[in-house]
Formats: sequence, structure tokens, C-alpha cells
Amino acid sequence: MASDLVLYFDYISPYAYVGFHVARALAERRGLVFRPEPVLFAAILNTLGQKGPAEIPPKREYTFKDAYRKAHAAGLPRLVPPPSHPFNPLLALRATGLVDDLARRADAIAELCRATWALGEGVEDARSVAVAFGRAGLDGEELVRRANDPAAKERLRATTDRAIAEGAFGVPTVIANDELFFGVDGLAFVEAHLDGHDPVPKDAYARWASLPASAQRVR
Amino acid sequence: MASDLVLYFDYISPYAYVGFHVARALAERRGLVFRPEPVLFAAILNTLGQKGPAEIPPKREYTFKDAYRKAHAAGLPRLVPPPSHPFNPLLALRATGLVDDLARRADAIAELCRATWALGEGVEDARSVAVAFGRAGLDGEELVRRANDPAAKERLRATTDRAIAEGAFGVPTVIANDELFFGVDGLAFVEAHLDGHDPVPKDAYARWASLPASAQRVR
Repeated sequence: MASDLVLYFDYISPYAYVGFHVARALAERRGLVFRPEPVLFAAILNTLGQKGPAEIPPKREYTFKDAYRKAHAAGLPRLVPPPSHPFNPLLALRATGLVDDLARRADAIAELCRATWALGEGVEDARSVAVAFGRAGLDGEELVRRANDPAAKERLRATTDRAIAEGAFGVPTVIANDELFFGVDGLAFVEAHLDGHDPVPKDAYARWASLPASAQRVR
Repeated sequence: MASDLVLYFDYISPYAYVGFHVARALAERRGLVFRPEPVLFAAILNTLGQKGPAEIPPKREYTFKDAYRKAHAAGLPRLVPPPSHPFNPLLALRATGLVDDLARRADAIAELCRATWALGEGVEDARSVAVAFGRAGLDGEELVRRANDPAAKERLRATTDRAIAEGAFGVPTVIANDELFFGVDGLAFVEAHLDGHDPVPKDAYARWASLPASAQRVR
């Protein structure tokens, strides 16, 4: 039985773009079923009461450079921002969730990612989304139409809720072998974990999880 | 003239512990003056209206594992959490800022970091702080005494304000060649930048910096 490698992502994040490519290559190398699942990053932030990198001006500036460097290191030569950012990724995410076949879904995501972070086209309006699906050999116009059905909206909500229930606090998040890995940098540790070489000892982690706090931040 | 490598850090963060060692080795390798500057991470979060990793339960759990893996990858074999976390790092930070000689300050930080994240002792109470300074050959009791002077408090405040003014949004933050790098993972890109091989093109960054937003998160 081949295990899954689940990737929770949102087109809004340049790290998710890089993470998609890194996770896909990893799944292929390891013979894992690659299961990319679109989630709404903004809903995760709302649930946690947290700001995203693009909502903190100095972090927003740094994020682009850092994601650019990580894209480059992952063999994606350049990062071209979309026409606007933040943008509304709902249509693209809902349409992506409608593609049941996992291999076709991954192909479609690769094209929507490319439109967002490599071609400068973006995936906010219906036409851009349809065109990107078309490049992956799918009927983009039909997917865009169905993306407004209550079922498509509910599916994205359910996937986002599941990601949060599994401990996701951002994108990209990978779940492999029941272990969560966050960020492009966290993905670097997946293979050691799968090989049984994760250096984190269970008892040290248990101690951390039960540690008392002796100070709280004064706000 | 040797350039500086500035590191903004707080003992509260296990990433700052790893980042301290990575940055110190990097400065040595490159012949840069290593200038580690204590800052109050909580004040940075207050300024940005952001939560820290330890304030978001699922992120708190992950942070320990991720920092453990990064410590291990950086040649620090294990991460032993302090007796409590979050703890109050003010005394340790204020005392550290009193050590003017940069080499001695780095030696002291190495010992306070070790007490916090490798020995399980912590650096919250006056005795632990004094003992750690003592291991670095400094008069810990005198430093602890002087740490409560208004001048020591003001120095920590000023350094924290400077870090924020320079764009810091977390710890560890490194400034090298006027460029900011954040996190243990961001430190991996410093040397390429110093060698003139930073892949981020100025025009792409300028485009990102001036990009309009077409959506805002609904809260």
C-alpha cells in the first residue's frame, strides 16, 4: 500500500508555489501518492487570529525576496508576481478542488501556480483561471462555472477545516506518515522522517508540550 | 575595513539559539565583525500586532520539532527546553547588552543560549543568569546587578527600536551588507548575497513592493 503525501496549499502564497513543486518531486521520488489539497489561507489566519506575511509591511517586503531565493534554490529560476497581491484566490481554489483525479489535479495546480507566480498573469478572474486549466488539458470553462456551486464552496470549506483540525497554521503544509511539516524549509526534513532518521526524540517533544509558562506577553 | 554582521536575537526563541551559532560561524568564515544585539522579541510582536509562534497552539508544537531539526542540521545535537516557556528574558537580555566587547559578548551569549536550550537550566532568574555569565569568564553577579539600572533598560529598548526601524519582524534577524535575512532558513542565503550571487533582481522586487492589492482578508 502506497502512503499519501498530502499538501495543503493556497495560490496566494509564493511559498506554496515553491512547496508544491518540492512536494510533488518528493512524492514521486518516494513512490507516495501525491494529494494536493487547496485550502483558504485567509480562513486559517482567521481561525488562529494571526496576520499573514503580506499583512505586515516589513515581512511582506522580505517574503518576496525569501520566496524568490527559495524558488531559485528549488530549480524554479524566477518568481514573477501576479498583477495584484493579495488577490482573491477563491475561484481558483474552488475550481481546483473539483478535479478528483489526483494526477490531473496536480497538473492543473502546476499550471495555475505558473500563471500566478511565473507568468505574471494571476488567477483571480474567471478567464485567467479557465485558461490555466485549459493548458493542463482540462475544461476550464466548465470548472469555473461549477466552482460557484454550493458543493464546490462546501468542499473548499471542508478541506480547510480538515487542514486546521490536523494542525495546519499556514501554507504550504505537508502531512506525511501522520507527521506535519510546514514551509519550504520544513519540507527539507520529510525524507529523514520517512527514513526513520528524524532527530526529534519523543520524550523531548512530550516535555516541551507540557511545559509551563512563566511569563505572558503584556499587550 | 571589515564589515559587520549584525544579529538581532532573543533567548526566548530556539531559532535564535540556532541562528546565533550559524551566524557566528558565518561571520568567522567571512572575516566579518560579529555584532550580536539582544532585542525583546515580545516588543517586536507588540509593534507589529502579531502573535509569536508560542502563542498559537499548533504552531507552538511544530516550532519545537522544527527548531530541533534545524539545531541538529546545524551541528547542535539536541535541544533541551528550559524549565518554562514562554519565560521572561528581560534580565538576561539587559545584562547581555552591558557587555561592550563584542568577542566577550558573543562568548557570553553562547553560554546563556546553552543554559536556555541545551542544558535545560533556563536564564530567567538572577542566579541562572549570573552562573551562565560566569562560565564565559565574566562577573555575572555584577552584570545582573547593573541589568536593573535605567541605563541597561534603555539600552535594550533602543536596540529593539533600531531592529524594528531596520525592518526586523522576528528573531533571529541578520543584517549583512545592508540586507536583512530572517530565520535559520534565511541565513542560508547570506553568503550568496555577499558573493554577489543573490538571485533576486532589483526590478522584480520593485514591482512587488509597488503591487496593488485586489483583495483584503475579511475578519
